[in-house]
Amino acid sequence: MSAQPIAVFDSGLGGLSVVRHLRRQLPDEPIVYFGDTARVPYGTKSKHTVVGFALDCARYLLRFDPKIVVAACNTASAVAIPELDAALPVPVLGVVEPGAAAAARHAQGHPVAVIGTEATIGSGAYLRAIQSHDPTLAVDAIACPLFVPLVEEGRDSDDPLVTLTVKDYLQPLRDDDVRVVVLGCTHYPLLRDAIAGFLGGRVRIIDSGEETAIRVQATLAERDALSRTSGRGSIRSFVSDNPERFERVGSRFLNEPIDHVELVEPDEYAWSAAQHS
Amino acid sequence: MSAQPIAVFDSGLGGLSVVRHLRRQLPDEPIVYFGDTARVPYGTKSKHTVVGFALDCARYLLRFDPKIVVAACNTASAVAIPELDAALPVPVLGVVEPGAAAAARHAQGHPVAVIGTEATIGSGAYLRAIQSHDPTLAVDAIACPLFVPLVEEGRDSDDPLVTLTVKDYLQPLRDDDVRVVVLGCTHYPLLRDAIAGFLGGRVRIIDSGEETAIRVQATLAERDALSRTSGRGSIRSFVSDNPERFERVGSRFLNEPIDHVELVEPDEYAWSAAQHS
Repeated sequence: MSAQPIAVFDSGLGGLSVVRHLRRQLPDEPIVYFGDTARVPYGTKSKHTVVGFALDCARYLLRFDPKIVVAACNTASAVAIPELDAALPVPVLGVVEPGAAAAARHAQGHPVAVIGTEATIGSGAYLRAIQSHDPTLAVDAIACPLFVPLVEEGRDSDDPLVTLTVKDYLQPLRDDDVRVVVLGCTHYPLLRDAIAGFLGGRVRIIDSGEETAIRVQATLAERDALSRTSGRGSIRSFVSDNPERFERVGSRFLNEPIDHVELVEPDEYAWSAAQHS
Repeated sequence: MSAQPIAVFDSGLGGLSVVRHLRRQLPDEPIVYFGDTARVPYGTKSKHTVVGFALDCARYLLRFDPKIVVAACNTASAVAIPELDAALPVPVLGVVEPGAAAAARHAQGHPVAVIGTEATIGSGAYLRAIQSHDPTLAVDAIACPLFVPLVEEGRDSDDPLVTLTVKDYLQPLRDDDVRVVVLGCTHYPLLRDAIAGFLGGRVRIIDSGEETAIRVQATLAERDALSRTSGRGSIRSFVSDNPERFERVGSRFLNEPIDHVELVEPDEYAWSAAQHS
């Protein structure tokens, strides 16, 4: 059991910020990653479409006989976990519940905020998950659609456009005296300094990816499925488009170099592949 | 022949800014539109993937027996016209050549600029098309990835984030004394005031969509294929995802209300639909 990989999928390369935490938390584990870069982003799309795409990604990864499947994409985690659970023969973990649980744990009665894509925020998934831990908590939820393209362009926290965009979106959180903010999108940890700088030192920032890595470890430990080998686990990466761009932009998310990324053609992963198989 | 529609496709809703000019230029013509909103955007994707998606869109529209197919998407026009031409039984027009021809016509020896998505600029298609008209022209080409999400968020030309982003991208055009700028993306006409305001009054702005509408009229006239009915032509719209969002955001591009947008499921349009048909 223990030689099986952890499978991780995402709409694109953002999920590598989750893999970064998995590598820190579980350095020995082999990881296989699928990024749906041909159809990225999911964050502006409907539940119907995101569920279909998420099932495609997860089904593609089953060929590697994983011991667990992690939906690193917040949008897919917000709308597709029940469908993934029903369709897959292995445990499925999303990033929303671990992030929400940490937010509720640290709130101490103050308002909590979640920031994410249009689809993640529109789904209300974080709100429901946070209030399932503590129904008395007030939750601000703000969609920040420009953060993803700002990060993908390579802009850092000290770029004037980043600073102005952070202020534009997050001013309401200062007005509401929010003390805990959940980064509900895999790209946002790369703007953490700008967000923390604007909100000030007493606001705690929760990275859902970091919380998810802790949850993956606990889930595997419970099932006695942790790797028994030692030494750095391997990473194999597959994408549905543009492996070169994935290598170039993705290494900033993973914080280590990426190479040998493999291209998967549509007939191997896309919706109708499953339909016709 | 004349009762056949003009077919227009785009990666999403941006192509409605081209339809707006078609409606002005050719008010009697029926139009059928397909927006690939499930896989939008095309501008960050590879040529290989964009060619496949463009063929999907165009093939879907063939069921309406169009007299011409217009690739309203600059990215598809930049990389997929030869493949569309070879695959389709009707004339195909893209937006790049008409925009490039207008730029060369108005340059008067001064440097010309093209702004567009990462994929459109990276393809070099505008550069080649402009220099095919006048090989002596210097061409600046600048990718402006944030313009699309700024427009889709509903931000106007007087929004401070728009103003700062325009300055960030377009300062080199002021430094180079550019006199003609091609808006090489269907979203950019909605930021025309901000772009014109920053560049100043002596810079001429070319909207590739407007030039394309003129070219469509000429092409149909040559073939004696203009509509012979009078009265407002109909528009039928199909999308691969999220018809509600298309109606809501798209009416700003079309400048008239949009309704009865129809959802097309993946097995009717996606890559493997063509493969299996």
